[in-house]
Amino acid sequence: MVQKFNNHIVTDLPFLKEKKLLVACSGGLDSVVLVHLCAALDFDFTLAHCNFSLRGAESDGDEEFVRQLASKLGVECFVEQFDTGHYAETQRLSVQMAARELRYQWFDELLQSKRLDYILTAHHADDSLETFLINLSRGTGIEGLLGIPEVNGTIVRPLLPFSRKEILAFAESEGIEWREDGSNASTAYLRNKIRHEVVPHLKELHPAFLQNFQNTQHFLGQTNDLVINHLKELKQKMFRHEKGVVKIQISELEKLQPLDAYLYGLLSEYGFTEWNDVKSLLGAMSGKQLISKTHRLLKDRDCLMLSKIEIKANTSYAVHLNETTSDLPIKLKLEEWKTLGETAENVVFLDKEKLNFPLVLRNWKKGDYFYPFGMRGKKKLSKFFKDEKMDLISKEKQWLLCSDEEIVWVLGKRADERFKVEESTQEIVKITWHT
Amino acid sequence: MVQKFNNHIVTDLPFLKEKKLLVACSGGLDSVVLVHLCAALDFDFTLAHCNFSLRGAESDGDEEFVRQLASKLGVECFVEQFDTGHYAETQRLSVQMAARELRYQWFDELLQSKRLDYILTAHHADDSLETFLINLSRGTGIEGLLGIPEVNGTIVRPLLPFSRKEILAFAESEGIEWREDGSNASTAYLRNKIRHEVVPHLKELHPAFLQNFQNTQHFLGQTNDLVINHLKELKQKMFRHEKGVVKIQISELEKLQPLDAYLYGLLSEYGFTEWNDVKSLLGAMSGKQLISKTHRLLKDRDCLMLSKIEIKANTSYAVHLNETTSDLPIKLKLEEWKTLGETAENVVFLDKEKLNFPLVLRNWKKGDYFYPFGMRGKKKLSKFFKDEKMDLISKEKQWLLCSDEEIVWVLGKRADERFKVEESTQEIVKITWHT
Repeated sequence: MVQKFNNHIVTDLPFLKEKKLLVACSGGLDSVVLVHLCAALDFDFTLAHCNFSLRGAESDGDEEFVRQLASKLGVECFVEQFDTGHYAETQRLSVQMAARELRYQWFDELLQSKRLDYILTAHHADDSLETFLINLSRGTGIEGLLGIPEVNGTIVRPLLPFSRKEILAFAESEGIEWREDGSNASTAYLRNKIRHEVVPHLKELHPAFLQNFQNTQHFLGQTNDLVINHLKELKQKMFRHEKGVVKIQISELEKLQPLDAYLYGLLSEYGFTEWNDVKSLLGAMSGKQLISKTHRLLKDRDCLMLSKIEIKANTSYAVHLNETTSDLPIKLKLEEWKTLGETAENVVFLDKEKLNFPLVLRNWKKGDYFYPFGMRGKKKLSKFFKDEKMDLISKEKQWLLCSDEEIVWVLGKRADERFKVEESTQEIVKITWHT
Repeated sequence: MVQKFNNHIVTDLPFLKEKKLLVACSGGLDSVVLVHLCAALDFDFTLAHCNFSLRGAESDGDEEFVRQLASKLGVECFVEQFDTGHYAETQRLSVQMAARELRYQWFDELLQSKRLDYILTAHHADDSLETFLINLSRGTGIEGLLGIPEVNGTIVRPLLPFSRKEILAFAESEGIEWREDGSNASTAYLRNKIRHEVVPHLKELHPAFLQNFQNTQHFLGQTNDLVINHLKELKQKMFRHEKGVVKIQISELEKLQPLDAYLYGLLSEYGFTEWNDVKSLLGAMSGKQLISKTHRLLKDRDCLMLSKIEIKANTSYAVHLNETTSDLPIKLKLEEWKTLGETAENVVFLDKEKLNFPLVLRNWKKGDYFYPFGMRGKKKLSKFFKDEKMDLISKEKQWLLCSDEEIVWVLGKRADERFKVEESTQEIVKITWHT
């Protein structure tokens, strides 16, 4: 029994031998067996225990158990207490998701600060089956039916091929002690309901159910790889990169069948997972757009334009006289000047006395208007943009230089009539945009 | 409740209205509800009942029930008795598979002989879930996790979106009577075990479990469509068609990752489902081959050669003197001739007295040898083929003309020394191969 576990690790995960490992240990059966395996294999490891403070004295008992296990084995043990309930509330997560996030955040910190190489967790075949059934119960795509990878970046799961039953047999044959997790015994959680009520019946359907299930997940993983390859080829063919924007010909998209699945496959990685919305966008008027957390998808005549949303820490910046900006998104130089020089796309001359310093650099907002240089009246910026035939993304990227609330210069496009140098002007400011 | 069922059929299966339908009816809940639906919708339908003779008097009771149902509704009813047990035994099938084959064979016959348009069966959402779980228990790929299509050729399944529970509620609300299937109550069959022990617990995991499951199957179906498109594109790029043989460059195959999945995906439709065998073939010696039920896959230097196995009703044919063959795979003409004419690739002249008529046309078999024309000794045909640098498929397609067991002519290649026209020859036979 022990041999079977050792063999798997030595044969399939040989790189662990020479590394510094962090073994996540709750004190429960699976992780305690993993710890004993690491000790038996003479690995260089330390323990990490998360106390999620969810079960009062029981949680503290687990912590104490892990500390003692570490000291018995003569290895170091890191312990961290989390206020999981609070985190879940503030982050609007389920308690299980919150615990998961806290756990991996802390492991990553430990890995970096202690210069360790890999985190080992005790996930096993039954965990994969449970996750599969949870996702199935909620409705999912192929991704939700795939297994957890045995090696994923710095996270390694050496027990993944083994069943809970095998792990239990291992523990019993070696006289290993562990802490029963009180929450396992109840069916309060979906996972426990699956573990105790669904899985035992499933396993009765076939003597090799779990092995067959692992094969199925392996095949599904390969099928998913084919899909990934297919979509990658399609993207190479269809996505035209132009100045930070990806242009996609709508007529080419519409050829793809099934369209829903292709829209999802091509655009989900940019946060557009509602293919129905994307489908309506294909036939929408120019200018319509979808916004994901990270990207913007804009319909522009016969194309979709995909661009990253730039996260602006601050949407307006102060620009001082006699200074060249250095930590702003663009470089502006404001100088006092003697005479009116030649205006250019990136240079304007303005009447200093009409301006209130510091000036303000910001993007367009709804309702903006200005008095275009050389014209008598005022004009809405939206109208000005339209006349300039600017697409939505260019509009959003457009910088404006303002004096208080009044627009002084639509950068690169037009200055404002109100601030122009006149005969009466006493002092001139030259503004240069170093593009 | 009734409205929900009617709406679905009227909206999503409008083509049924004008057609002649055959409704498969076991007498059980699902199919009896389907029959009542067809009646309520005023469809033009007849019933078909299979008596599989598996449950003695109970089976006969079912038959009687369906006959009475038909007569109550004033529709025709076809009944067929099957000896399922015997068929299963002789065809080496499970009883369930045997019943399935017999059923659909008979339905097809009825469709043709009675000039009907569609077969309606009562499969519903729970059936799909059960099939999914059966395949999952055995281990499967994505195809095993897909649903049954609602319309598949001439088979239509109007109840597919509905659960067994909804169908039951329908029957109860309408006071519909049906026969309880005795085999349903036991857990003797895998499907019944799933139905009674696994599915109820699964459905407790989520209030919309079955709907979510249908969505999952829909998504998996679309993913599978993407894979099919991908493989189709690959085949167009990689499969070179030459004279009934498909040549595939091994170096191109080997670039594909994951290779196993690609080998399976590209070659499974030709019956090569053991990708492991195909993988070894890539690196095997020239001449190694795999044979499926329908195809041959031959390693030939840097290529795999895929060809259909031609099914020969008879591997040897009689060829008579003074006759031109007309119903043989090739056209041969055997004429008595006066003088020795000019030999060609497709023409030989032989000594009539040395031949025993009718001659025999057949393919190569192991151990064949002949006396190549112009040479003194005999030569194994395998050696001759090798010297001619013939690939395996050409060898197998090679025709031989024999006198009893002795090879007279390796068609298109070489005649035999033993039957050549000599000075002493009295009568000559001219043989022409009209290619």
